[in-house]
Amino acid sequence: MDFIEALGLVAGICTSSSLVPQLITTIKKKKASEVSTVMFIVLLTGNALWVYYGFDKKDIPIISTNLFTIGLNIAMLTLKYKYKNNE
Amino acid sequence: MDFIEALGLVAGICTSSSLVPQLITTIKKKKASEVSTVMFIVLLTGNALWVYYGFDKKDIPIISTNLFTIGLNIAMLTLKYKYKNNE
Repeated sequence: MDFIEALGLVAGICTSSSLVPQLITTIKKKKASEVSTVMFIVLLTGNALWVYYGFDKKDIPIISTNLFTIGLNIAMLTLKYKYKNNE
Repeated sequence: MDFIEALGLVAGICTSSSLVPQLITTIKKKKASEVSTVMFIVLLTGNALWVYYGFDKKDIPIISTNLFTIGLNIAMLTLKYKYKNNE
């Protein structure tokens, strides 16, 4: 792995990890996220397109970051429906 | 602009635009975001590294998406301090 790829992975860790506290807060408060379902769909579409883009460019940092973000967003969407009645 | 670059830009618009409603909600409610300052710093660092990464790879979608996200995050951070006493 060269320097710039390592830097890309660090960038990905920084931007993805910023979603984790939101997930933890949602679990702790057992309260649905204020982010709308439509927005989650837009975000997931964006992440999926990034993954496709990453594969085309054979860009490991983009692929791994967006796959991780897709996982986090699906978790958030699941919690949003689980805690739907707690609003 | 070729197909894959256009697709990368659409991906960027999808992932960046998901931050806009959060900004609007913050402005409407005049209430500080629940996201911590430390997390904003981590996020901004991540975006800055992505911009560097994008320049190295001469990747327009990565550069433009992350510059736009940096703008949105600085706006959020500014509002967070402006509405600090409204918590």
